[in-house]
Order: sequence, then C-alpha cells, then structure tokens
Amino acid sequence: MAEKTSYPYRVLPQDVDFTLRATVPSLVSSLLDAAGLDAGSKGFGIDKLFAEHHTWVLSRIALELDFRPLRDSPYTVSTWISDYGRVLTTRNFTLGDASGLVFGRSVTQWAMIDLRSRSAVDLSWVGADPSACIVPDRPAMDPPRKLRAFRAERQAVHRVVYSDLDFNRHVNTLRYIEMMMDQLPEDRLTDEGPLRLDLHFLKECRSGQTLTIGIGDGPGEVSFDISSDGGSTSSVRGSFSWCDPSFGTGL
Amino acid sequence: MAEKTSYPYRVLPQDVDFTLRATVPSLVSSLLDAAGLDAGSKGFGIDKLFAEHHTWVLSRIALELDFRPLRDSPYTVSTWISDYGRVLTTRNFTLGDASGLVFGRSVTQWAMIDLRSRSAVDLSWVGADPSACIVPDRPAMDPPRKLRAFRAERQAVHRVVYSDLDFNRHVNTLRYIEMMMDQLPEDRLTDEGPLRLDLHFLKECRSGQTLTIGIGDGPGEVSFDISSDGGSTSSVRGSFSWCDPSFGTGL
Repeated sequence: MAEKTSYPYRVLPQDVDFTLRATVPSLVSSLLDAAGLDAGSKGFGIDKLFAEHHTWVLSRIALELDFRPLRDSPYTVSTWISDYGRVLTTRNFTLGDASGLVFGRSVTQWAMIDLRSRSAVDLSWVGADPSACIVPDRPAMDPPRKLRAFRAERQAVHRVVYSDLDFNRHVNTLRYIEMMMDQLPEDRLTDEGPLRLDLHFLKECRSGQTLTIGIGDGPGEVSFDISSDGGSTSSVRGSFSWCDPSFGTGL
Repeated sequence: MAEKTSYPYRVLPQDVDFTLRATVPSLVSSLLDAAGLDAGSKGFGIDKLFAEHHTWVLSRIALELDFRPLRDSPYTVSTWISDYGRVLTTRNFTLGDASGLVFGRSVTQWAMIDLRSRSAVDLSWVGADPSACIVPDRPAMDPPRKLRAFRAERQAVHRVVYSDLDFNRHVNTLRYIEMMMDQLPEDRLTDEGPLRLDLHFLKECRSGQTLTIGIGDGPGEVSFDISSDGGSTSSVRGSFSWCDPSFGTGL
C-alpha cells in the first residue's frame, strides 16, 4: 500500500499579487509539480511515459483555498492517488502551512494519452499493480463539479502566444486560470476569503489560435467557457466561487 | 567583507517551453528571488524597507545564457553586490548547473525608492556599512548596455490585466520579458544557443493601461520599446541578441 508524499514549497516574490498573497496559478503550479514528483518516484512519471510515447493529461481539477499564503511563506503540498480506473486516475492534494494547518484541498482527474494518436490509453498499460499506488484515504474535498454550457453575458478574446505554451505547444493550465482571473471584478481579486475553482479541460488550444472567453456572472460564482477560433465547442470550462461557509468542513 | 551567497533552484514542469528547457522568465524569477533572499539575510530586504516606506526597484538588467537547463534540472544561483553608490547598487549573479558549470551570468542595477513620493532615495539611508555588503569580485559580465530609441518596424498592443501585476500593482518584470518574447520569430524561440538580454525600466506601467510594444528587427538582435497609453516616452526598453561568440569569455 502506498503512502501520501509531501513536498516543500515557498511563496516566491514573483508568486504574489497585490494582496501580497500567493496567486492561485502559483499554488496550482506547486500542485502540478508535486504530482510530477510523486508519479516519478512511483515509476509512472512523464519521463518514463515519454519513452513509450505516452503522457499524462489533466482532465479536471477542483481546488478549495481557505486562504492564500503570504509572500515568503513556506508551505507543504501532500498528494496521494485515491482511485485508479481504466481511463482516469484521481489524485488528491492538501496544502498545509508551516504550523501544519491545512489551508487548501484539491482533487484532480488525469487521463493518459498516446502522443501519436492523441487518444486516451487504458491505464492498465502502466503495468504497475494499481493497488500499490493507491492510498485508501477519502479525497480531500468533493470531486470536480459538472460544468454545463451557459449563456455568456460578456466575452473577451485572447490570441495564443509563445508564453502561453507548455512543453507540448498547448496552452498551459496556469494560463487558462490567468485568462479567467483577468476577467474577474476587482472585489473578487482582493477577496481573501475562501475560494473554490473547478476546471474541465476538453480540447487542447494551440499556438496561433484566437480564443474566445465567455463569462457568466452568477451569485457568488463566475463561470467561464473558452473556445478556439470561433468554434462552438468548449475547449476549457471553469468556475470560480466564493464564500461558501461549508468549505473545509469536509475534512 | 561580504561573501557570495548561493541558493538552490530546480526547473519545474511549468517553467519549460516547447524546447523542454527553462524559459528566460523562469530563470529571471530565480535571480530576483535570490536577490531578495540575499538582501534579507544582510539586513536590507524589502520587508525591513517596507516598514520605512522604502523598496528596491530594478532599474536595469543584463543577462547572458549559454544554454537554458532542461526540465527537472537543479541549478544554483550565486549572487553578490560589487558596487554600492548613492543612487544605484550593482548586484551580480551566476547560474551554475549540477556539475558546477556556469551557464548564465547577470548584472543588475537597483535603486531604492520612497513608496510615498515614488522618488529615489539616497542609498546611504540603508545605514549599513556599504563595504560590509560588497564582494570585491568583478561583475559577472559586461554591465547593461545603453538602449537607445529606434524606429519601430512593427508594433503590438497589450492591455494590462490582473495577472500582469506585481505586489505593487505595476506590471511585473517577468511579464515585460514575456511580452517581448511573444514577438520573437519561431527560429529565435527554438534557438538553443547563447542569448543576451538587456532591459531598462524607465517608468512603471499600471493596471488598465494599454501598452504599445515597438519592435525593431536588426541583424542578430531584436529591440523593444514599450510605452503606455500612446505616450511618446518609453516605459521599458529591451534587447535580445544571439550568437555572439564572445559570450562567456569575460569570465
């Protein structure tokens, strides 16, 4: 049986916004790094997968933050896999401050794709005994929510450029979050209370494409739908919500 | 007499571009972090300065990279102050790989400003004995070059958004570098040979402003001039140059 692994991080000067707290993308960057380190240490990291033309792709993420840590603060990301199916694996995270207080939780779902066909591969390919990777702890929070189509009240446009791209020439996860946050009203950006973020990655966006960001402002929630080149199908859906007093009670 | 200090870093998954190598902004982020840590350890970090309504601002940076390290690579940033005048202090850096090979060098010039008046303050304010902070080693490379006005051959436009901003609600250093790199031709972005970057920060750009990025394509060099809200004065000037065989010979 596997165990949770923990990795140390620190809020760098470039990680903070004008609240002097770590940005959401900088915290998600640490989650993705911890996921890579843990997968690598257990024999299914992307270096090993690349040799077989496979890679992990993030399908969905849900993240709850009770607060964002201040500049220079050390924090710890703990991660574990709680479920491992034929198509998706569920990876969980908690974020803890220096005193051990858990201030953030995340549940992510990952698929493995073949880099040549770009299609999902059966996770049994990994070959490892799934049970050896699983920590039978409950997920850290409710899983990623369903995000349905909605009627956008406003739109923004973003042309994909070099600095948006990941190693695979697709728009990277952090940039999608930034594109969404750049459309939030000022009072949401300075809100230091609890925040929940849900993201679904449906279709990869590429260099040179022009993205349309549809925005829906609801009570306590802002929804996003990103599509490429005027297409009618969503590439990424997202939702930010605030001030739910039930945050954190799931643990 | 002070000593050079060194800090460990690692190329995170989100730090690489499609060459699988660390992006220039991610390496500059490590330099800025090391600067902050070193200043803090010597008693003139921004936390201490903030209490007196002062802060450091980066005035100029020159950076030479022989190569950019690959994903997951550990690297070390070493830093020292070589000069400390009334208005500007010169901070140097080297970047070394796991074998100790120096693959990057940087010279930066910093001013201290009063956050209320936004004007430069006499560095003697710091109060410390300057000689106690100085490492009498020569700078790591030639100092930042003069960057003159030029006739832009093409222009791009960027509206400043939340994710561009630093703790002070000004566009952060890394975003200026990204704005420039997003205008580089593909063959420059995939060029893994030596690169030199010079940046001058002349005027702060703020939330809500629309920036004009003027671009001048020269032989072996691309020049940039960023101004805000149609102004005729430069906010940031920059230059990227490639393939100078003299790189690295200064050490």
